[in-house]
Amino acid sequence: MNYPSKLLNEIVDEISKLPGIGKRTALRLALYLLKQPPEQTQSLADALLRFRNDIKYCKICNNISDTEVCEICQDNSRDHTLVCVVEDIRDVMAIEKTGEYKGVYHVLGGIISPLEGISPSDLSIDRLIQRIQNQNIREVILALSATVDGDTTNFYLYRKLTGLPVSPEISTIARGISVGEELEYTDEITLARSIQNRVPFNKTLKSKDNN
Amino acid sequence: MNYPSKLLNEIVDEISKLPGIGKRTALRLALYLLKQPPEQTQSLADALLRFRNDIKYCKICNNISDTEVCEICQDNSRDHTLVCVVEDIRDVMAIEKTGEYKGVYHVLGGIISPLEGISPSDLSIDRLIQRIQNQNIREVILALSATVDGDTTNFYLYRKLTGLPVSPEISTIARGISVGEELEYTDEITLARSIQNRVPFNKTLKSKDNN
Repeated sequence: MNYPSKLLNEIVDEISKLPGIGKRTALRLALYLLKQPPEQTQSLADALLRFRNDIKYCKICNNISDTEVCEICQDNSRDHTLVCVVEDIRDVMAIEKTGEYKGVYHVLGGIISPLEGISPSDLSIDRLIQRIQNQNIREVILALSATVDGDTTNFYLYRKLTGLPVSPEISTIARGISVGEELEYTDEITLARSIQNRVPFNKTLKSKDNN
Repeated sequence: MNYPSKLLNEIVDEISKLPGIGKRTALRLALYLLKQPPEQTQSLADALLRFRNDIKYCKICNNISDTEVCEICQDNSRDHTLVCVVEDIRDVMAIEKTGEYKGVYHVLGGIISPLEGISPSDLSIDRLIQRIQNQNIREVILALSATVDGDTTNFYLYRKLTGLPVSPEISTIARGISVGEELEYTDEITLARSIQNRVPFNKTLKSKDNN
């Protein structure tokens, strides 16, 4: 588009580099900021720079953190022998929200994706292996998305971890129909898998105490 | 949501202040920036501040501009006696894109909207009146959105401008069915209005030379 101002052009270009934001939305956001007090833009710009420059990754679990070691890894009430492997911080937050998990995490920073050019070396897999070799870890839970890339990464990790001299127990989160979901609308693969992987009914009764 | 980092919390808060962006999208954008080189965040922050602090409003037409007087108002090949009144810069850009309009603009900066608390004094109406009184203006075209607020503003401006000692001709952009639109799917009010405001057929033939 032909903007009547270089400054406007520049800001629309910059904002529309963000994923899912097109030129039209970028223009709307820029014009919105123009109608707000300058302080709002200032604090947005400040927060952006502070976030990008000062954020740290926990040196134990690779999660986003304000400190060298994140709050979860510092928490002694947690079970540090139980490590849940996730893709990114959003998954940590999702699991934390359940309030059911008392172990610690390992954040891969992505999943193996040949299509997006993400290979194992781009992820914090080496650090996971080091962690397993140096710390006393009883069980690793693979909690990646139920997608082709997630399955690939699960399998890659499984192979790597079982090949270690001292290998922890390796589990993966249960897949099946969601709570509240109707069988009729469940896709065939999920349904077939949840029949294959059926569990003794009495096990589901005490599942709340199982972690 | 409970973020494990104050910096993340802060940036998500700031980004989600923007219209149409919720906490979840804000988190996605923040994590995206974290995966890009720091230079991208730096140039976004710089562009935001430059835009908000250095942008000017043309002192003639009130449009966004890098200079005191915008390019359109500086352009001597345009007809400065013909002023098109629009809501904001997006409308200027939309009309400019047609390539059919050779007059100049007056940007109100909004439309009268009791629901959103925008009154005539919040808009550059006084400057439009000054402009009409000081310059030689032959015609004012009211080109506001075809909404209740647009109609209200049109009517308010019509009353104001016709009350001036020397009043220019006042017109409004034609409303009717869009080019390419099928009658069957046109709403009743638009269809009724376009029948009421029907134009001699031969006038439509030469409409391209009429501005």
